[in-house]
Amino acid sequence: MDNNPYTASHEDFRALCRTFLAREAVPHHAEWEHAGIIGHDLWAKAGEAGLLGIDVPVEHGGGGEPDFRYTAVFIEELVRARVTVPGFVAHNDILSSYLATRTTADQRARWLPGLCSGKLIAAIALSEPDAGSDLSGMRMTAVRDGNDYVLNGQKTFITNGENADLVVVAAKTAAQGMSLFVVERGTPGFSRGRRLEKLGWQACDTSELFFADCRVPATNLVGKENAGLGYLMGGLPRERLCISAVAVATAEKMLADALAYARDRKAFGQAIGSFQHNRFLLATVDTEVTLARVFLNHCIAEHNARRLTGTDAAKLKWWTTELQVQVADRCLQLHGGYGYLKESPIAGEWTNSRVQTIYGGTTEIMKELIGRSLGL
Amino acid sequence: MDNNPYTASHEDFRALCRTFLAREAVPHHAEWEHAGIIGHDLWAKAGEAGLLGIDVPVEHGGGGEPDFRYTAVFIEELVRARVTVPGFVAHNDILSSYLATRTTADQRARWLPGLCSGKLIAAIALSEPDAGSDLSGMRMTAVRDGNDYVLNGQKTFITNGENADLVVVAAKTAAQGMSLFVVERGTPGFSRGRRLEKLGWQACDTSELFFADCRVPATNLVGKENAGLGYLMGGLPRERLCISAVAVATAEKMLADALAYARDRKAFGQAIGSFQHNRFLLATVDTEVTLARVFLNHCIAEHNARRLTGTDAAKLKWWTTELQVQVADRCLQLHGGYGYLKESPIAGEWTNSRVQTIYGGTTEIMKELIGRSLGL
Amino acid sequence: MDNNPYTASHEDFRALCRTFLAREAVPHHAEWEHAGIIGHDLWAKAGEAGLLGIDVPVEHGGGGEPDFRYTAVFIEELVRARVTVPGFVAHNDILSSYLATRTTADQRARWLPGLCSGKLIAAIALSEPDAGSDLSGMRMTAVRDGNDYVLNGQKTFITNGENADLVVVAAKTAAQGMSLFVVERGTPGFSRGRRLEKLGWQACDTSELFFADCRVPATNLVGKENAGLGYLMGGLPRERLCISAVAVATAEKMLADALAYARDRKAFGQAIGSFQHNRFLLATVDTEVTLARVFLNHCIAEHNARRLTGTDAAKLKWWTTELQVQVADRCLQLHGGYGYLKESPIAGEWTNSRVQTIYGGTTEIMKELIGRSLGL
Amino acid sequence: MDNNPYTASHEDFRALCRTFLAREAVPHHAEWEHAGIIGHDLWAKAGEAGLLGIDVPVEHGGGGEPDFRYTAVFIEELVRARVTVPGFVAHNDILSSYLATRTTADQRARWLPGLCSGKLIAAIALSEPDAGSDLSGMRMTAVRDGNDYVLNGQKTFITNGENADLVVVAAKTAAQGMSLFVVERGTPGFSRGRRLEKLGWQACDTSELFFADCRVPATNLVGKENAGLGYLMGGLPRERLCISAVAVATAEKMLADALAYARDRKAFGQAIGSFQHNRFLLATVDTEVTLARVFLNHCIAEHNARRLTGTDAAKLKWWTTELQVQVADRCLQLHGGYGYLKESPIAGEWTNSRVQTIYGGTTEIMKELIGRSLGL
Repeated sequence: MDNNPYTASHEDFRALCRTFLAREAVPHHAEWEHAGIIGHDLWAKAGEAGLLGIDVPVEHGGGGEPDFRYTAVFIEELVRARVTVPGFVAHNDILSSYLATRTTADQRARWLPGLCSGKLIAAIALSEPDAGSDLSGMRMTAVRDGNDYVLNGQKTFITNGENADLVVVAAKTAAQGMSLFVVERGTPGFSRGRRLEKLGWQACDTSELFFADCRVPATNLVGKENAGLGYLMGGLPRERLCISAVAVATAEKMLADALAYARDRKAFGQAIGSFQHNRFLLATVDTEVTLARVFLNHCIAEHNARRLTGTDAAKLKWWTTELQVQVADRCLQLHGGYGYLKESPIAGEWTNSRVQTIYGGTTEIMKELIGRSLGL
Repeated sequence: MDNNPYTASHEDFRALCRTFLAREAVPHHAEWEHAGIIGHDLWAKAGEAGLLGIDVPVEHGGGGEPDFRYTAVFIEELVRARVTVPGFVAHNDILSSYLATRTTADQRARWLPGLCSGKLIAAIALSEPDAGSDLSGMRMTAVRDGNDYVLNGQKTFITNGENADLVVVAAKTAAQGMSLFVVERGTPGFSRGRRLEKLGWQACDTSELFFADCRVPATNLVGKENAGLGYLMGGLPRERLCISAVAVATAEKMLADALAYARDRKAFGQAIGSFQHNRFLLATVDTEVTLARVFLNHCIAEHNARRLTGTDAAKLKWWTTELQVQVADRCLQLHGGYGYLKESPIAGEWTNSRVQTIYGGTTEIMKELIGRSLGL
Repeated sequence: MDNNPYTASHEDFRALCRTFLAREAVPHHAEWEHAGIIGHDLWAKAGEAGLLGIDVPVEHGGGGEPDFRYTAVFIEELVRARVTVPGFVAHNDILSSYLATRTTADQRARWLPGLCSGKLIAAIALSEPDAGSDLSGMRMTAVRDGNDYVLNGQKTFITNGENADLVVVAAKTAAQGMSLFVVERGTPGFSRGRRLEKLGWQACDTSELFFADCRVPATNLVGKENAGLGYLMGGLPRERLCISAVAVATAEKMLADALAYARDRKAFGQAIGSFQHNRFLLATVDTEVTLARVFLNHCIAEHNARRLTGTDAAKLKWWTTELQVQVADRCLQLHGGYGYLKESPIAGEWTNSRVQTIYGGTTEIMKELIGRSLGL
Repeated sequence: MDNNPYTASHEDFRALCRTFLAREAVPHHAEWEHAGIIGHDLWAKAGEAGLLGIDVPVEHGGGGEPDFRYTAVFIEELVRARVTVPGFVAHNDILSSYLATRTTADQRARWLPGLCSGKLIAAIALSEPDAGSDLSGMRMTAVRDGNDYVLNGQKTFITNGENADLVVVAAKTAAQGMSLFVVERGTPGFSRGRRLEKLGWQACDTSELFFADCRVPATNLVGKENAGLGYLMGGLPRERLCISAVAVATAEKMLADALAYARDRKAFGQAIGSFQHNRFLLATVDTEVTLARVFLNHCIAEHNARRLTGTDAAKLKWWTTELQVQVADRCLQLHGGYGYLKESPIAGEWTNSRVQTIYGGTTEIMKELIGRSLGL
């Protein structure tokens, strides 16, 4: 059976990613994990290597390649190299979903070249302490005042929170209306709070952000006032596709590692993979990972054909991330005590995996969306 | 998202199936269930309608259409009409996998026209009382004697056991060798035992078969002596594809019925589908059925491209049939007490579904095959 | 570890049950299953043997033994003998929970002797076509008219529906009030509808009941007017204890049968129980059945000490019945094709088991109750 | 329902534990976690408070109280205070299972007073890099040489590895024989390797140990030569009881925290516990935790009555620890993004929990033991 959706051109790009990560990221990764943040200049190097803004038009410094498979390849290589994924993916995703598409020509000229070159790093700020999955519970406000908007409120769980030069911030501009604003580094009234200590993805800076009478020029409004929720709804399928690409690539990697371990490790005089329980376990994982891969490939093709709906993306997101969590759990168990040591790859993958069913819309929110699509 | 793999031509064939079943099968089905056997003449009517031997060359009376999607469409319509599936599917499958491909020109001329017209009904006899999934435990023997083989032994769980005019019988012809023979109705020494009472598929005759010094001419040997196991291995992927097509079609039907019930049925003053538990349940089922459909379509395309391996078919078989069993269980629960009444469609689907993880290779055997393919 | 809660006295009673069932029930059971109803005179024989009204005071013809363990023993023996359980259990339960406790001295004198001797058979009628678990959706009404109540409405899924001589009927007597009435066989306006064909428990008559201007004397009101819901709430823990006793006894029997089969049945040259997958499966089932038994024993002891709450009973009910359904499913699979034949004990247990998570309050209703007890 | 097995005397002991931990452990715990090791003097303080050697005879400085419930209470308080559990539990367990029971009067006089006062800390060294659950794969050897044994080999995953003053070491003394030796701090040839970085229990020192021509006097042999495996088999039920006590106490704590969070945290304008999905989830967890508690109490009572077998302990161990892992997973999910932050209690409990199905005999080993007890 042929489950490989990639052409020679994708494989060339993969080689480029692999070389880049091996040279620029892997040698520094332990130190970034210890520091709790990736070096800001990695983005510039990635931009130079052509890894940022793959689908942004060439005129703005992007790759001009709308095929999502390039993004999937980049994600696969990040996972394989065990380099922290969320920061890059968020940057590219914000760039594609909001800053390259919902903006004016003027805004594109201002921001896209820097984002594609990696001189600017992007973040998106939605979650608040009292509003995670529930965007309607958002308290942050933006009030028009002359040619400015004045932002007040707090955000949390923001990927690239500290590294970000441009933050796309969601704020209420009416009782039922939400708008998106670009807040630039150094804007008075905008400050960063704690760097949050997470169970996994330690190299990624995840932060609280504060906005106290923070004045943003109206020219930093993304799209139309009060239209923000619609933009987010439009951007979420792509974000969920990215998260699922991480899920499937990680599950494939954990399976491959578990297979190697199961063939090699001996107990009671035989390879542990030869015990029927383990053989069935790995056969089960292999089957489910195959299904996940086929479904992901299908969804990517549909996304490229502009047919992937929010409901499809929701199905893909929850199923593949729940699978990832389960695969991580079963593979850790297979490794016995070694699986519980931080030095084992599966240990890191187990903790990294756990956030996947939470961010980008929890499994529960995904099921709500799907349930509604069924008229329930 | 577009998960529909069918063209207008397939839909025309679907209409033909639907009309045929509504006219020739549905009105008699309750009576067949009561009798425990389908009328033998239904095959002749199906043959006349062009539903048998779809992929058999036209010169032998078949449809000359190798595309498996026509078979899938036929299966979908059987499921939708709630007409017993195994008899027809077994007939067509035996025809395609063994009698149209492993036979001599002479044999094809003798058997294919009757099988395609439905004048002859086919069965395949593998299982024995002490050898189900374990073909190596088979005890039935065939010993060469002049121009004949003499068969001795017993078979059981044989679909179409009573209706069959031609039975493909597996028997040991050497310590490690197995061969396939066509035993024709009326052959001395060949007799039918009990019709087995099953939990589901009551309209389908499932029987014990006995062979006592049963002489079969050597011209009824299928392919080469001692090559039978290889033929079976070659035929199993197609059989498993058929079983999975039943699984997915049944799961889709159960989901559609459950959705209709959940939207309509009220409790505590609201539609039961509006309870979050049920909404999440149906969202989960919908997601998993979507995955199953996408994977089945992919496997069918790979089968048509002659790339579907035994391992792929094993993954498809166990996962979709286990899903079917779970979906049946959850949908029955959703119907409450009504789901436990024989009159409710879900009750029949629940009992019919249960055999799917057992016949055609149990889930456990599938995992063994997959485990071996992983080098474990 | 000692999980046996029974004393010599309980074991004597067990011997009595076993002898009775072997003599009076087992030889006729197949015929009752075919007929769809148990012979009415079995109750009289059971009464004579001392199996009815175990906890009813001796003065009314009962056993005067409040210890629930005797009921548990009777249930275990019914399960072991494969004699249909619900009819007897319902009779004894209705007797204990409503007719021996909520009634006047006069009513007790009228009804208890016949119920304890088995000359009268009891049924309880709660469910309606549009109100299963949701008692608040009940439409049946009872209107006071002189010394009578006039009942109108329809009931369904009534165990002992046809055999019953006394039916405890729930009907609305006010907008928010429900009352219980005893309707006696032959009361004008009371008629029986269809005997419902179920997936399992075929020997048990389950019926629709109709009440059309059915006049019941006010002396047949059970307890106080409008207090019916409270009585039902009070009676449910005992009913759920009975259902769980069935669940645990059935699971224990299925496990014992599966173990015997797994030790005996050979495949690939070895006992199938020696395959690690089956060994782990049975170890898992054994563990969970042990937990269920320990928990049931604990709940029985708490019930005897009058400490078992509705929430406790709800936990016991859903967990043990869901376990039973799973154990049935796994054990059927272990039996392969043979498990799908009606002749195999596991086949009957599989279909009988399925209703257990539905009647007596579905798993979903149980979780609602528990959730409320947690203040959610 | 009354699931509380404790008397006033146990509650007095609980108060003592709680006060001790609040004063001596909680204020230093973060620093111990950072250091990766608990202060050695905590044992002395615990000994002074009467928390060590609870069941060791008074004459040796112990509590003289064989009732395991005191140990369970201590474990519950450790869990409640979020103080690292394994070190203390291992110490007390080694003391009870091996050093107080398998030793000579002379050895008891040498070691017990120090172990009970906490001046000496105990560890047990079984696992080796190539032999985890498989004790038969052990490579470490002890060879008799005059009045000494000479030990050679390596151990790993040793709880209290660094803090330990007395290490009970298992080593091969014959092809099929294993013996236990007490190796004291400072013995030449005995050295400590890396402190292993684990996913959880960061305050607990888990180490590699090395033995290179390490001479131990024959008076340090525990019990008889070559009888070590039997001693371990005898000691394992108590160890598994301890692990299950941790499992149940942790699950209870996580449930209580999740309930508090679910009642308090709002989303979409309502408490998140009021969503049916969460209500059912918590009802499910509550039910299963209740079952676990009842089963644990039962096993403790059986242990106190000396009736708890290895098979019982195996059932308890795997079921409660698998439950703990699942409860941790579900409760983390309930907390959303906050659950993924190290600052949230559930995050720590999630990582701590994960080792429970691995150490003390994996779930898979437990199922092997149970399967064997079933004759499979």
